[in-house]
Amino acid sequence: MKNFNIIYGIHSLIGAIQSGKKLKKIFFIKETKKSSSLYRKLIKISKKNNIPIQFVKNISINSIKNKNHQGVFAYISNIKMFQLKSILPSLKKKKKDPILVILDRITDVRNFGAITRTSVCAGADAIIVTRKGTISIGADSVKTSSGALFEIPICRENNLNNTIKFLIENRFKIISTTEKSNLNWCDINLLGPIALIFGNESNGISNKYLISSSNQIKIPSMKKNLLSLNVSVACGIILYEILRQRNFYKKN
Amino acid sequence: MKNFNIIYGIHSLIGAIQSGKKLKKIFFIKETKKSSSLYRKLIKISKKNNIPIQFVKNISINSIKNKNHQGVFAYISNIKMFQLKSILPSLKKKKKDPILVILDRITDVRNFGAITRTSVCAGADAIIVTRKGTISIGADSVKTSSGALFEIPICRENNLNNTIKFLIENRFKIISTTEKSNLNWCDINLLGPIALIFGNESNGISNKYLISSSNQIKIPSMKKNLLSLNVSVACGIILYEILRQRNFYKKN
Repeated sequence: MKNFNIIYGIHSLIGAIQSGKKLKKIFFIKETKKSSSLYRKLIKISKKNNIPIQFVKNISINSIKNKNHQGVFAYISNIKMFQLKSILPSLKKKKKDPILVILDRITDVRNFGAITRTSVCAGADAIIVTRKGTISIGADSVKTSSGALFEIPICRENNLNNTIKFLIENRFKIISTTEKSNLNWCDINLLGPIALIFGNESNGISNKYLISSSNQIKIPSMKKNLLSLNVSVACGIILYEILRQRNFYKKN
Repeated sequence: MKNFNIIYGIHSLIGAIQSGKKLKKIFFIKETKKSSSLYRKLIKISKKNNIPIQFVKNISINSIKNKNHQGVFAYISNIKMFQLKSILPSLKKKKKDPILVILDRITDVRNFGAITRTSVCAGADAIIVTRKGTISIGADSVKTSSGALFEIPICRENNLNNTIKFLIENRFKIISTTEKSNLNWCDINLLGPIALIFGNESNGISNKYLISSSNQIKIPSMKKNLLSLNVSVACGIILYEILRQRNFYKKN
């Protein structure tokens, strides 16, 4: 099974099929109760897409047997990674100003999944991660994103400094979220092409990226001792503030 | 250790001490590296509050030995639960319109923790949960809230229908978040006393509570196949929209 990944969980499989991933087969663990509406949905779209279902006694695959697999799994070809330079022309052709989400060393797979899901819901155009220091993007991130990972290009970049320079040359505002700023998230103009940077769960955004940002903004805490929000919650607040300012949410 | 709970993780312990919880002793696992700024902070505030530190070889307590305890734990008296009726008079005396967060059968401890942390950051006044069908509130929720659980009253109510009636009598707007609504989160007036309801991760808010709400609102998804945000992200988006509308964030 070289060059293949396993994915598990109902939302992951539904997301994969809906986004056009070609699954050769879906495995159901025999004892799984298949009466819920989500199982019925999975079975329905499997049939529609001519994907056979095979029943197995139990899961012997070490990497997932203790995970919350909900009794279903499948193999897919490796999750495709993109290069920002190659997708930017297509983003420019869209009728809306692009929104990019840059993640500086996010290490918690649940945070990565929640950010991916939120980015897709908010209509962001791509997620940019660094080649080093980021979580490996595989079955667990598909699961924690509820399958949203298939709905948005993930760009893996060697050098985020160069990426930021490239985005500035292409007239993007680079906006970092940091507690160190005095500018509140809703007191800044969020129109035009935007790349948001979110930083590592413990250390925040690296100084070098803070310096090269067009703006630093904060989501203030009303409690002085408790300074910071979870990174995926912060991401949701800013993405939906963008939609609010652009009136974009009214168009859907 | 009857009537005592164990708490673990650095943020949990710092949160407990800062909120005035009386810890008799803090346990450090000997091999823990104590060089990070957070460990130094914990040691500093322990000394300031005259809490002795005891070093132990390892953790033999089953309930936490496989958890992400970061090498520290302590015992605390049971987490205090409140009754809404008894705390409402004190909320009315505050100079701001109260914000309450009602959780209808949230079952994921990480979601509960993130909602608690976000509620504290956004200056919400209390979290209301039902006695049945909610997660048990203990060490794991303290940990996933990064200690924020000590910073906000948690009210456990027997009958949410009665609680909602009581809040309406006290001039609260009851606002449910549901995909079924056509009213967007930022197209509604969020001034005045507000109670927000968020529903179960799979099934949303129970119909009986939807019916008795003053308003139903939605956070729209731009992707038709992927309808819903994570509940803690949704909670953050609405709480910070409240702060934005009230200009409250400028006062801190």
